[in-house]
Amino acid sequence: MSEPEAHDGTGRVQLSFTVLDPDPERTAQRSVRVPPGVTVFDSASWNGIAIDSTCGGHGTCHKCKVKVEGSTPITRHDVKTFTREQLDEGWRLACLVNATRDMAVDVPPLTTRPKAATVGVGRQVILRPAVQKRYVELDEPTLADQRTDLARLVGAIDDLELTPDLHLLRRLPTVLRQADFKVTAVVVDEALIDVEPGDTTKAAYAIAFDLGTTTVVATLLDVSTGTPVAVASMLNKQQPFGGDVITRISATMMDPEALGRLRSAAAETLATLATQVCTEGAVDPAQVYEVALAGNATMTALALGIDPEPLGVAPFIMSTAQPPDLLAMELGLDLHPRARVTLFPALGAYVGGDIVAGMLATGMDRDKRTRLFIDVGTNCEIVVSNGDRILSTAAPAGPAFEGGAIRCGMRAADGAIEVVKLGASEEQGVELGVIGDVEPKGLCGSGLVDAVAELVRVGLLDASGRYVADDVAKEIAPALADRLTMLGQERVFVLHRPTPDAEPEDCVVLSQRDVRELQFAKAAISTGWTLLLEELGLEHRDVQQVLLAGSFGSYLSAASAVRIGLVPKLPVLRIVAAGNVAGEGAKMALLSVRERAGAQALLEEVTYVELSDRADFNDRFVDQLGF
Amino acid sequence: MSEPEAHDGTGRVQLSFTVLDPDPERTAQRSVRVPPGVTVFDSASWNGIAIDSTCGGHGTCHKCKVKVEGSTPITRHDVKTFTREQLDEGWRLACLVNATRDMAVDVPPLTTRPKAATVGVGRQVILRPAVQKRYVELDEPTLADQRTDLARLVGAIDDLELTPDLHLLRRLPTVLRQADFKVTAVVVDEALIDVEPGDTTKAAYAIAFDLGTTTVVATLLDVSTGTPVAVASMLNKQQPFGGDVITRISATMMDPEALGRLRSAAAETLATLATQVCTEGAVDPAQVYEVALAGNATMTALALGIDPEPLGVAPFIMSTAQPPDLLAMELGLDLHPRARVTLFPALGAYVGGDIVAGMLATGMDRDKRTRLFIDVGTNCEIVVSNGDRILSTAAPAGPAFEGGAIRCGMRAADGAIEVVKLGASEEQGVELGVIGDVEPKGLCGSGLVDAVAELVRVGLLDASGRYVADDVAKEIAPALADRLTMLGQERVFVLHRPTPDAEPEDCVVLSQRDVRELQFAKAAISTGWTLLLEELGLEHRDVQQVLLAGSFGSYLSAASAVRIGLVPKLPVLRIVAAGNVAGEGAKMALLSVRERAGAQALLEEVTYVELSDRADFNDRFVDQLGF
Repeated sequence: MSEPEAHDGTGRVQLSFTVLDPDPERTAQRSVRVPPGVTVFDSASWNGIAIDSTCGGHGTCHKCKVKVEGSTPITRHDVKTFTREQLDEGWRLACLVNATRDMAVDVPPLTTRPKAATVGVGRQVILRPAVQKRYVELDEPTLADQRTDLARLVGAIDDLELTPDLHLLRRLPTVLRQADFKVTAVVVDEALIDVEPGDTTKAAYAIAFDLGTTTVVATLLDVSTGTPVAVASMLNKQQPFGGDVITRISATMMDPEALGRLRSAAAETLATLATQVCTEGAVDPAQVYEVALAGNATMTALALGIDPEPLGVAPFIMSTAQPPDLLAMELGLDLHPRARVTLFPALGAYVGGDIVAGMLATGMDRDKRTRLFIDVGTNCEIVVSNGDRILSTAAPAGPAFEGGAIRCGMRAADGAIEVVKLGASEEQGVELGVIGDVEPKGLCGSGLVDAVAELVRVGLLDASGRYVADDVAKEIAPALADRLTMLGQERVFVLHRPTPDAEPEDCVVLSQRDVRELQFAKAAISTGWTLLLEELGLEHRDVQQVLLAGSFGSYLSAASAVRIGLVPKLPVLRIVAAGNVAGEGAKMALLSVRERAGAQALLEEVTYVELSDRADFNDRFVDQLGF
Repeated sequence: MSEPEAHDGTGRVQLSFTVLDPDPERTAQRSVRVPPGVTVFDSASWNGIAIDSTCGGHGTCHKCKVKVEGSTPITRHDVKTFTREQLDEGWRLACLVNATRDMAVDVPPLTTRPKAATVGVGRQVILRPAVQKRYVELDEPTLADQRTDLARLVGAIDDLELTPDLHLLRRLPTVLRQADFKVTAVVVDEALIDVEPGDTTKAAYAIAFDLGTTTVVATLLDVSTGTPVAVASMLNKQQPFGGDVITRISATMMDPEALGRLRSAAAETLATLATQVCTEGAVDPAQVYEVALAGNATMTALALGIDPEPLGVAPFIMSTAQPPDLLAMELGLDLHPRARVTLFPALGAYVGGDIVAGMLATGMDRDKRTRLFIDVGTNCEIVVSNGDRILSTAAPAGPAFEGGAIRCGMRAADGAIEVVKLGASEEQGVELGVIGDVEPKGLCGSGLVDAVAELVRVGLLDASGRYVADDVAKEIAPALADRLTMLGQERVFVLHRPTPDAEPEDCVVLSQRDVRELQFAKAAISTGWTLLLEELGLEHRDVQQVLLAGSFGSYLSAASAVRIGLVPKLPVLRIVAAGNVAGEGAKMALLSVRERAGAQALLEEVTYVELSDRADFNDRFVDQLGF
């Protein structure tokens, strides 16, 4: 893999993709915002934009050709791939272009029917999906050849041990005879789920779901090519029951009907997204044969209708680490009637299938480097690998990162401040990045981290996390000092004033209590990884890569995360936004039975460390509170 | 096994059972009619009356004690088992008493919790049902022991590789905690289908269904003891679609909705019987965890909703030889929600799962003797084993045996003549056995065979099957000659005159055409077994035992069957009524996973011989038409 191009780990870059199509009317525009340093290939992939590739972003297949506007470094692989003229036009290999500035990127139509796909964090997956279609032309039966319909079909596919079900047997006699014994067998793993008239081998789809507590993402995949066809996301319809897993578990404990309602809400969310991606991709839902679902233990239990109460109270017990095989129908999905669901195993009540999927996507079990994986959220999951042993744990970070319990907190939606830079000089003052480029309405998680980090950097917050006194503020940051004011009994820092003379209660502010909330959250997390590193006998500086995952973690400013101590004090280039790794893991499981088996193996390979009963936890936690 | 007591192979005997119960109010009376020679044990067993036994009717366990009224031979096993006084009172071992006369039998309450059960034709089955219940008391979870609920339960049952399903996982957390972790696991094969609070190991039931084209029989079994709890039978609700498989298949070909209706009719039949046996046995349907179903290929396909058309037209193709695993719910049964269905494999479109079940029940694959198995019905299945090779075939016998296409034919119901004896002398005339001991209304299959056999014996039918001329009749059978008369253009023999001067059309008669129908039917069958015997290089006299099976075959007079050539010309004691062997096979499959595996093995061991394309079939058929 190429060396990542330098960036300062702050802010966002915008990539404007033009996805070309042989039919010019179908050429589409897509704009995405990503943290700096992510490759163009990953940025596209995370957003469901398919680019040819077979090597997994290692610069060797020379297939992921894109045209980038503006000046872009040329690698030796680019030189081998393109003519001088093409390089001048901006042609580059997408896996080698780091998004360090806003860019316009032309993506040519897919040219190959690939044997491999690139998913996750630079993971190349040889295509061997569980869903397989086989076209066969069978001999018609005679009195001399009275083999049963099933034996005839299965005999023609002798490399698989196929198991039929009743649905298949009900269709088999009719379909065989209507189609003159020329049919396509539809197989998921070794289950023979259908037989379709004629050759339908090109139509084989699956949906990967990342079932988050807050946001649910669906990716429709063409499993025959490994390419994403459509992506859609929406808020989990369980939101009205509470913003985090604990409030939702509590809901089931207080109301016997809540479990059924939460299950329905999950089902509706998944069904809505499934319809959306099928419509967008112009795919018949009946040709979606498999679904992979990655979710935390509570989300998985609620979607399956399993009482989550034991997950929510000590000693935190799951019903099972390995959810059972089931049909998509049982999740309320109206896809192929025998479409299967593959679920990820879980390591513990708070290190669920989403994290196992994430470990798969980031290759935690394969990479020989010492790596730290942090999925930042209300519940924060932490995994450390030294290339040999893998430890995992969970840290209750609280809702601060999702804007909860923060005075002006909000989700990462239009109007949320996501980037904060404090100027050193009077002229610069406060520079804000706002989602949707509209008037700021509040502060989302990454903005919160940025704000605190910047206030620490300029000295307005001391190492203990307290706002400095007014006179000190005036001395060290005269241009900012007047923003430090009182709101009721509390000191606040004004990030945005809608009008020059607006009262503090009408401004977007960061309160002293907000800072404390963040301190608790980051201390929970850093205590977690500190203890895991110690368990492996490692120092902070031994960590070669930090993967920040999850819808929040991926959008966190690396520089700010280092500054506040959320991650070890390392060069920002070692801190990588990993994207929606749960969703990526789900895609991998759909595209490769080998990778799916790898997820199962993680159950054995990863040791879950329970921190809540450790005597030294509180001591360490206090150590980690400061900046 | 003891030598069977002599009988002449004709008529019926009536057994009046008094089934004693520790609670005298529950003592019950049951009367059954069986062909002579059947043991008291089998007569009870076929009718759902449980008698202690562990040895399989070999006279060695000395447990099947009954008290028989009247004089009964005493075997050496009886002498070993009973005191002189008991023998005088009529105590005998039920497996050694042949029912050669009407008998009253007292059955004592069950005393043992047996390890084996006697089912089928003298088959002893070591109890190892697929349904197992295990009571476990589990340690409650702690922070130091965070095993999942499933791991905790499965870990306590470590001799089985249990697979849970979603239904189980939905119940598991709640049931474990409500029952203080003292629960009973419900297992079918290795599927963990439920967990019940407390110790419910004694309540484990299953239902064996014989899904006949005409009659459907259900036996509710206590699988923990191997004893039948209740038996019920009724006409298949598919009757309105036609009396035999071909008319039902035709119905599906003419009306696209007929398949759905036939499937519903089968489901309703099974559900009605299930409710009936559960009510009669006072068993909660939710504690019925498995169902075995034996039916011919068409009945099985229709019950499953699989298009039967390819079964009905050459080249006669089944959808599958091995029906898939399914839930009882999918057959429309309201038992335990995850109750499983086990179905028998089929050897061909006309040698279905019912015959495989019958082979299991009769031990066709285990007995070293040369045996001929005939399931007599509209479609007649024939199996020959020389103790080494097993051949099977099907012969289309037509509806004669079920009373179809016979002028005065009727089913074996009240008013049907089932036994016919023609007196040699004037005084004796015609002696009839009539079901229900009422005024004769018609002739059922066994009465038809008896009537023809007797007419051949006395000479009123010649070897070609033609009624002799009136003058010849007067000479050879003066007492019967006036019964030979004309009805329209046809000669008939009057079996029963309601009034002395009744016209022939008001009498129960046997017409010349009826005789021809029976000739065709018996010729189809005897051609079948003749060709199979030849295939094995055997003569008729090599056959050591003929098993007559099915609801009709079992009630056929052995002497008459020999007389008309339906079976080889052998001493009647070699001809055994085998009972409802399909139902018995279904019971065996429920009581023993080993026997169930044996049924699977039959698929490999038995060779199906297709007769319909044999060049010599018609020649042989003509040879077999005469008497």
